[in-house]
Amino acid sequence: MTGARLTDLVASLPATVPFVGPETQERRRGAPFAARIGANESVFGPSPAAIAAMRTAAPEAWMYGDPEVHELRAAIAAHHGARPENIVAGEGIDGLLGYLVRLTVAGGDRVVTSDGAYPTFNFHVAGFGGVLERVPYAGDHEDPDALIARAAEVGAKLLYLANPDNPMGSHHPGARIEAMLGRLPEGTLLVLDEAYVDLAPEGTAARIDPDDPRVIRMRTFSKAHGLAGLRVGYAIGAPGLIAAFDRVRNHFGLGRIAQAGALAALADQGWIASVRAEVVASRARIGEVAARHGLRALPSATNFVTIDCGADGAFARRVLAGLVARGVFVRMPFVAPHDRCIRVSCGREAEHLAFAAALPEALADALAEARG
Amino acid sequence: MTGARLTDLVASLPATVPFVGPETQERRRGAPFAARIGANESVFGPSPAAIAAMRTAAPEAWMYGDPEVHELRAAIAAHHGARPENIVAGEGIDGLLGYLVRLTVAGGDRVVTSDGAYPTFNFHVAGFGGVLERVPYAGDHEDPDALIARAAEVGAKLLYLANPDNPMGSHHPGARIEAMLGRLPEGTLLVLDEAYVDLAPEGTAARIDPDDPRVIRMRTFSKAHGLAGLRVGYAIGAPGLIAAFDRVRNHFGLGRIAQAGALAALADQGWIASVRAEVVASRARIGEVAARHGLRALPSATNFVTIDCGADGAFARRVLAGLVARGVFVRMPFVAPHDRCIRVSCGREAEHLAFAAALPEALADALAEARG
Repeated sequence: MTGARLTDLVASLPATVPFVGPETQERRRGAPFAARIGANESVFGPSPAAIAAMRTAAPEAWMYGDPEVHELRAAIAAHHGARPENIVAGEGIDGLLGYLVRLTVAGGDRVVTSDGAYPTFNFHVAGFGGVLERVPYAGDHEDPDALIARAAEVGAKLLYLANPDNPMGSHHPGARIEAMLGRLPEGTLLVLDEAYVDLAPEGTAARIDPDDPRVIRMRTFSKAHGLAGLRVGYAIGAPGLIAAFDRVRNHFGLGRIAQAGALAALADQGWIASVRAEVVASRARIGEVAARHGLRALPSATNFVTIDCGADGAFARRVLAGLVARGVFVRMPFVAPHDRCIRVSCGREAEHLAFAAALPEALADALAEARG
Repeated sequence: MTGARLTDLVASLPATVPFVGPETQERRRGAPFAARIGANESVFGPSPAAIAAMRTAAPEAWMYGDPEVHELRAAIAAHHGARPENIVAGEGIDGLLGYLVRLTVAGGDRVVTSDGAYPTFNFHVAGFGGVLERVPYAGDHEDPDALIARAAEVGAKLLYLANPDNPMGSHHPGARIEAMLGRLPEGTLLVLDEAYVDLAPEGTAARIDPDDPRVIRMRTFSKAHGLAGLRVGYAIGAPGLIAAFDRVRNHFGLGRIAQAGALAALADQGWIASVRAEVVASRARIGEVAARHGLRALPSATNFVTIDCGADGAFARRVLAGLVARGVFVRMPFVAPHDRCIRVSCGREAEHLAFAAALPEALADALAEARG
């Protein structure tokens, strides 16, 4: 009576998952968080127009969503000066990264990323048998030159780079990314994750021909658009590569409410501008709170602020634990030397006050513990 | 300037997709369908409680859904007399079938199904390099004995069976499925797709110990619950197999609105009962319309009726084209001899009237064409 036999690859995968959700932590704590500023969600919420569209679509949820995602892809294409053939929409950037890795990475294929960059991308690479090559950051920035050099060295199928970066919040000017294209090794595809680019300074978005076969850009409705819980992302790329997604994707994966909500969110660029203003103000406010307690906030091009706690990973983990124990959900980078930091998502006054109240207590506890 | 290199497996996959959506057909026709009864969606819609829950959740869509899907899995487990460890919830049965195939099927592994059964399952098997072994139906029923014999012969990793069946609408008593378990070859997992079982006669759902490692059952909110466009399905199985999904699934794949809607839909069993009554009445009505024009409706345990058009596949395809041309979206089985039939989803009076008006005209055209 045996039942399922897992593949050798799956049997070799770890049972650990990239992220523990805040709900799991709340169940462990036995209490809800007072401030949910750990997953870079947008507490500013989605556009009222998107909320209205989702509510209108709710009774229509008996119908599958259009498997060609025709209307949304057309709107996205128009937004980017591209054609619908350049766009694949899917179940968040996470889902699209999974499809992309599946399309390109077979057992033993090399993939280059930065050590400490997006764990879910690594999860997909490992999950399809790829071999990850991790390149150190240059300080708090991902290092384009080192990434390209490593990709050439190992003949990488994919080179992952997020601009702006998560978890450090840093960014490169778009021109720096554009300059990478001509230096990519033959046969290496640049996976440019621009999840946070709507919140970055002018000029951060690389100007790239949508038909350029050397790069695929990933965008999401989860950050500036405030729709993390709707699960809609998209990729912009050359038609040949975009068409390949049809060979493996779940064709009905984007539901009725998801397509309606994303379409309305994209149309409301005024809302994105207002969120951007709120984010800029919140970054400053979080930086002030950090500075008040002797901590340095790193410059951020995203909807979160990465704060250097001024010591090692063990110390930052204590600060994080102290914040979580006080009802403030935050996260931190996984890898040294960045794990000297904690990462705080932007919020409104309620979140700022909760963080400002909890931080000095968490710091005091961490210092006391460090002194033994 | 090459960019992406697809894997050998992906390069070998066809560019065709399992289903063309009704929206695509509407764009080609240049007009919307008057009756949408081709994809076995539930025109009766979701429970009002589910609609309310989705609307309430809409402004909260800035938050990722709980990646452990704790509350919904607990409710599903209670509904089935199982434990949460027996349940994985995911992006529809389509998504879960993809994960299951990925977990178990590597290049060259054999998978057994019925010739003409669910194409999306076949899409996943081919997509992960599995080799499909197709067993003929016994008449209009899937053939458990022949499926088991073939699985033993080829050492199949998976044996797919839908009960009730799609596209024929037939079913086996649950006891027949239960009796299969003891006869499964060592190392063959039974994939029991029960998407339509909520609409089947009493006794169709096999009584299976949730911890039985020989079988995984698939259920959905897309049919009786009227939430095809929300993308929520679940699987019931032994904890070891269920835990393995965590190694490959998109952990944040079930969004906030999806979890809230499914939870409310599950709680409203009164709605399911009312849908069941509407479906039973609609099946009878569709059968009457068919009989009035000399066609035989097959017995159905689902929310659709498969109608034998009394000739060959070419004739049925003409009837189908005539219905579509008259604004009635229906589908038909892909494979002979079942492609002598068309498949009509249950509806309300508006759908019945549209079908009753279009069928005689479509039949007359098809007959005229057949006569040359």
